[in-house]
Amino acid sequence: MDVAAPTRVSLPPLLVDELGALLGDRVSTAAADLDQHSHGESYHAAHAPDVVVWPESTDEVAAVVRACAAARVPVVPFGAGTSLEGHVAALHGGVTLDLTRMNRIVEVRDGDLDATVQAGVTRKQLNAHLEPRGLFFAVDPGADATLGGMASTRASGTNAVRYGTMRENVLRLTVVLADGRVITTGTRARKSAAGYDLTRLFVGSEGTLGVITELTVRLFGVPEAISAAVCAFPDVRSAVSAVMEAIQLGVPVARIELLDDVQIAACNAFSDLTLAVAPTLFFEFHGTTRGVAEDAETVQQICAGYGGTAFEWATRAEERSRLWTARHNAYYAGRALRPGGQGIATDVCVPISRLADCILETKEDLVGCPVPVALVGHVGDGNFHLTFVVDPDSAEEHAAVARLHDRLVRRALEMDGTCTGEHGIGSGKLDYLEAEHGAGVDVMRRIKAALDPDGILNPGKVLRP
Amino acid sequence: MDVAAPTRVSLPPLLVDELGALLGDRVSTAAADLDQHSHGESYHAAHAPDVVVWPESTDEVAAVVRACAAARVPVVPFGAGTSLEGHVAALHGGVTLDLTRMNRIVEVRDGDLDATVQAGVTRKQLNAHLEPRGLFFAVDPGADATLGGMASTRASGTNAVRYGTMRENVLRLTVVLADGRVITTGTRARKSAAGYDLTRLFVGSEGTLGVITELTVRLFGVPEAISAAVCAFPDVRSAVSAVMEAIQLGVPVARIELLDDVQIAACNAFSDLTLAVAPTLFFEFHGTTRGVAEDAETVQQICAGYGGTAFEWATRAEERSRLWTARHNAYYAGRALRPGGQGIATDVCVPISRLADCILETKEDLVGCPVPVALVGHVGDGNFHLTFVVDPDSAEEHAAVARLHDRLVRRALEMDGTCTGEHGIGSGKLDYLEAEHGAGVDVMRRIKAALDPDGILNPGKVLRP
Repeated sequence: MDVAAPTRVSLPPLLVDELGALLGDRVSTAAADLDQHSHGESYHAAHAPDVVVWPESTDEVAAVVRACAAARVPVVPFGAGTSLEGHVAALHGGVTLDLTRMNRIVEVRDGDLDATVQAGVTRKQLNAHLEPRGLFFAVDPGADATLGGMASTRASGTNAVRYGTMRENVLRLTVVLADGRVITTGTRARKSAAGYDLTRLFVGSEGTLGVITELTVRLFGVPEAISAAVCAFPDVRSAVSAVMEAIQLGVPVARIELLDDVQIAACNAFSDLTLAVAPTLFFEFHGTTRGVAEDAETVQQICAGYGGTAFEWATRAEERSRLWTARHNAYYAGRALRPGGQGIATDVCVPISRLADCILETKEDLVGCPVPVALVGHVGDGNFHLTFVVDPDSAEEHAAVARLHDRLVRRALEMDGTCTGEHGIGSGKLDYLEAEHGAGVDVMRRIKAALDPDGILNPGKVLRP
Repeated sequence: MDVAAPTRVSLPPLLVDELGALLGDRVSTAAADLDQHSHGESYHAAHAPDVVVWPESTDEVAAVVRACAAARVPVVPFGAGTSLEGHVAALHGGVTLDLTRMNRIVEVRDGDLDATVQAGVTRKQLNAHLEPRGLFFAVDPGADATLGGMASTRASGTNAVRYGTMRENVLRLTVVLADGRVITTGTRARKSAAGYDLTRLFVGSEGTLGVITELTVRLFGVPEAISAAVCAFPDVRSAVSAVMEAIQLGVPVARIELLDDVQIAACNAFSDLTLAVAPTLFFEFHGTTRGVAEDAETVQQICAGYGGTAFEWATRAEERSRLWTARHNAYYAGRALRPGGQGIATDVCVPISRLADCILETKEDLVGCPVPVALVGHVGDGNFHLTFVVDPDSAEEHAAVARLHDRLVRRALEMDGTCTGEHGIGSGKLDYLEAEHGAGVDVMRRIKAALDPDGILNPGKVLRP
């Protein structure tokens, strides 16, 4: 699924000097730095940039982009490097902008429940900063990604069913355009009808329309009460049916996660848990003490109706944290099913009424799959992932998994779903973008050409050059 | 604030025949039809189109747009005609697409809590259809607008604090592009990271990037319990302080509306109510019986802390309906303060922490205002409106109001707010769009040029041609 043998630009010899004049020693062409910035966490082929730079301000990013624009050299933004679809590989070489030194929390406004941060701030860093104030940032993709990266891929995660994705949680962005100009999208007003929604245009654009350097995001007050529960089911259909009923009833669960038996076994091993090896839902409820109790009671009844047993509570903060840490490590736990194996993560999302069908047809298709495969999902949103663990050197396994993956995506599209709920297109899903959007891709192309006429911004991602 | 004397295109003589061949008798050049389609509900100057057509399908809209594109004739989409910023005036003449016959509810999917409707379906029509199924569509701008129009202006209204605006409630659109091609933006998945967010790009684009012909929107289950309350305050600051505290505490109120003393008196007169003439909050709580009681108790305590008295309940459906009908008629009630008067509505939205400042500074600025002015606001979002009631023939009054309005918008922008929370830019706020977005407007222009190179789609709205 990777772009085959992309052509690399030849870097003008003076560009590195020019970048050095701008950023001093925060410029590197050392092999170790280039290698570290050649890939995310996925199986996609690594492609090293020619130079890595570490800007510390929007102005520095703008200066670097201006230099690259003048030389028509690709610019690839890089955050925590946790991407799963090849977003950060420098397919055509060029300059990688490592934004991790832009990690300043600019302002937290308790009264407005919002915060402004530089793009390199990670979600854990922000939440640690917010904790003493009784606030939290809700979007939670598992990995400790940077907020700039999360905005760029329209990330979501376990809390999205209640608090929304980056689409709903970004109020405003500072963006460096392809020509080095800087814009601010929108204001801090909670809603606006003023012109085209540039904030939502840049959220999810994967660095191909501009470089996000600063974000203002929504915050929430830490709820008065939080409780988590785990419930095992006789089979996947029962578990998903319970989820569908809870969502359709409008129960305001904060998190509903499905882990299949393989994933539970993997988490038990990786995170030292002793959960029953069966399809399992993890729940979390947020609200007032009474509200949480009421919601949990409703959900417990629903689960019981589908044969859910052992509805176990984790009300203490440590227990909850242990459970969610295990959930967050599910991808790594899956990969650990096969030491030395390489993880290939899928990411479809379908309308909730089709979720059971989609999962069950997929499970059927997986019978005879030559490699371990674990299933985990943000099922309240209709989003689920498989982690295939392949031998990195086996072309045969890769081919078998590619066929299963292809059928999975087409199944989701036929069910009016999307080829990616939260991981993004990167270079890994270019064909599926076309399958999903049809003529809409031409609209995307025209927007790309209008905003980045020379195609220097993260080329080869989202759209074929 | 209107565009002065826009030039009108000259219609190719054969275009009307061509439209007739496409739509039969659903084409009119009768003066009464042209006049009816020359304006919305605002004070902005009327501009009649040359022809009005009533398509009944996306294909018919596409055919009309193709004909207009070939002739380079403007196309102006028209829904219920309730716009407040001159969106539907045919500034440069051309063809008005009246979409009200596209009023078919295509499909309601209870299991997915979504519905697909044609663009001419109105919110009341949809909600009447949904009521027997125990579902509702949450976006509620007061006027019985069409959903296509609501999407085009990124409408919101009283429920937005809890359920979001059209930005959050549209899942997918069918759009006819400037060249007559038809695209579908996205899928019915609740979230997606697949490419640029075309849905959010067209939501709020006011017919300038494409014509919305079909929408898939989110629905919600009618809550188990609903209760409404009315609370009068000694002054506006106290009322707004109570709102700020409730929002900052995260109380999940469904609606919080502020009406000042002038607005309350106007509603009493217009809607035959007997409310105490004082700054007043209208609340509505949605949830379980216990949850609603708990939320209402919390809010009642907050209000009491700010001198809120007479926290009156309206638990019966008829009482609630009477209250909210009065609230929805607030604009008409305001206009009725001065028989024969013309309403001029403002629409700023600021971060919640600045709401009291913004309203109080505005109130101070209004001392000595030569015309009646009522204040009403979706204060949970930081959004409020003034209705000035001017003598339509008094240039002096118009000028005085324009100065007050200008200062109001600039005050909101200085407070990091927006020039329009929900009414849109239309032709009335072109200057303010530039004040608010700066260089971002150039990005909007490039997008407009990329998607509508001949500028035939609702020209003169959002961006100057």
